[in-house]
Amino acid sequence: MRFVKGHGTQNDFLLLPDLDGEIDLTPAAVRAVCDRRAGIGADGVLRVVRAAKHPESADLAADAKFFMDYRNADGSVAEMCGNGVRVFLRYLIAAGLVEQSAAVATRGGIRSARALGDGNVSVQMGLPRFLADRPIVTAASTSVAQLPPLEATALLVPNPHVVVELPDTDTLDALDLRAAPVVEAPLPDGQNVEFVVRRGPRHLAMRVHERGSGETRSCGTGICAAAVALARTDPEPVEGPTRWRVDVPGGTCEVAWGPDGELELLGPAVLVGEVDIDERWLAEQQIEHGR
Amino acid sequence: MRFVKGHGTQNDFLLLPDLDGEIDLTPAAVRAVCDRRAGIGADGVLRVVRAAKHPESADLAADAKFFMDYRNADGSVAEMCGNGVRVFLRYLIAAGLVEQSAAVATRGGIRSARALGDGNVSVQMGLPRFLADRPIVTAASTSVAQLPPLEATALLVPNPHVVVELPDTDTLDALDLRAAPVVEAPLPDGQNVEFVVRRGPRHLAMRVHERGSGETRSCGTGICAAAVALARTDPEPVEGPTRWRVDVPGGTCEVAWGPDGELELLGPAVLVGEVDIDERWLAEQQIEHGR
Repeated sequence: MRFVKGHGTQNDFLLLPDLDGEIDLTPAAVRAVCDRRAGIGADGVLRVVRAAKHPESADLAADAKFFMDYRNADGSVAEMCGNGVRVFLRYLIAAGLVEQSAAVATRGGIRSARALGDGNVSVQMGLPRFLADRPIVTAASTSVAQLPPLEATALLVPNPHVVVELPDTDTLDALDLRAAPVVEAPLPDGQNVEFVVRRGPRHLAMRVHERGSGETRSCGTGICAAAVALARTDPEPVEGPTRWRVDVPGGTCEVAWGPDGELELLGPAVLVGEVDIDERWLAEQQIEHGR
Repeated sequence: MRFVKGHGTQNDFLLLPDLDGEIDLTPAAVRAVCDRRAGIGADGVLRVVRAAKHPESADLAADAKFFMDYRNADGSVAEMCGNGVRVFLRYLIAAGLVEQSAAVATRGGIRSARALGDGNVSVQMGLPRFLADRPIVTAASTSVAQLPPLEATALLVPNPHVVVELPDTDTLDALDLRAAPVVEAPLPDGQNVEFVVRRGPRHLAMRVHERGSGETRSCGTGICAAAVALARTDPEPVEGPTRWRVDVPGGTCEVAWGPDGELELLGPAVLVGEVDIDERWLAEQQIEHGR
């Protein structure tokens, strides 16, 4: 198997070109190649398949030429990833499969992506949906102290997020996110938890704990969730469309929130190189760890 | 640049074949490719050069055909690595450069390695040298409590090690090695600190904090240091050569301690695949991060 390694704000992926959908990509193979020490290492695999050639995307093929078959590092199937779509488009362009933009079919629907002149890639992220409940994060700790219970904002982008504003950067930096923050009245499917600090007008810093992954260096939908959650209590609100800058440990993205409520995520997408997996090694992994 | 990714008990490396020593391998390039999220990811780079073609190994070329030019993930030059030599030999065999064994020139001297029938590779590790001082590890903590000051054994293999025996596996598992353990009267060049528990006759479990790297999944010289340090207080000592089994988070190695005092490290060495780095990406990294 031949992969391409890439990342968007250090959310990193192994892209697997398989245009005709012929590769039997087992969970064991995904786990093996994503292992950061015993394999190559990545947050997940993005299989690149022509939409018409995959049963999950065939009925979207009229509107989207390619399907992003996204798997988490643990081998499970995933829906959508804003950083992933950017890297996916960067691959399509590098491989000469599209010009500067593409509609990408994902398990979370079709996402339009386009390369910008400045090296960034933008991707449409859809409409956020706020949930009425305001969950309380009761157990978040820092290296110096346990935080008091914090009121949060719950929303879907479309995956579930709980956004918590913190008072200052020191508290954000000192957060201990090795364990999942405890959310009172958690969302039915669990949630990513974003901790956010304001750095200036529509300029945020964020760290995120993702369900199933732990702390990550970036999360595209989480960046969007943070921006729209903090827009609600913006001390200097502006009319009309806004643009937010969000700094995460892996880099910086921007969120454009249009007048129609549509979110757009803008940020870097980088290809690092090609990875040619030893077939014997992969076969041994599958024997050892099952499919 | 074209690398081969491999690992020995999950001590992982990017091997860079450069038989004629023509590649200008900058610290920035090493840091960039070893970055686990923005690059490919590894504990270090092992450049494969004919000993005669490298100024640091040319005078060893009569006794060793290949030089292992070992760089840490931070770009600095390193001496020797027992797990690295095993993976290095595995590469030489796979590339058809040697049969089943080789003498490998390293900055720590020549090391003989040979492939065993069971898939493992053995490497000569030289003589351990015990230091008279018995340093005290004063600040090691676990997830539940601070440990009392612990008496340790200091030795060179030939890099500096401080070995601490713990009473039980629960304490070992609960150790917090995110920060370096504090050693009273540290060795002049710093030290790796090994925490070790006896699991049975000549069977140990170990975790290690490496100077400059933090906790790693395995450390070849540390495995040797642990075995010979605990041999001194073995409750069931045997005469003559002994063989120790040492379990580390990344797998299991064996240490053979011969009658001449020579140490031999035996363990797995695995090649995962080839990595072809995008030249434009690499050039950008060098511009961004300097040489």
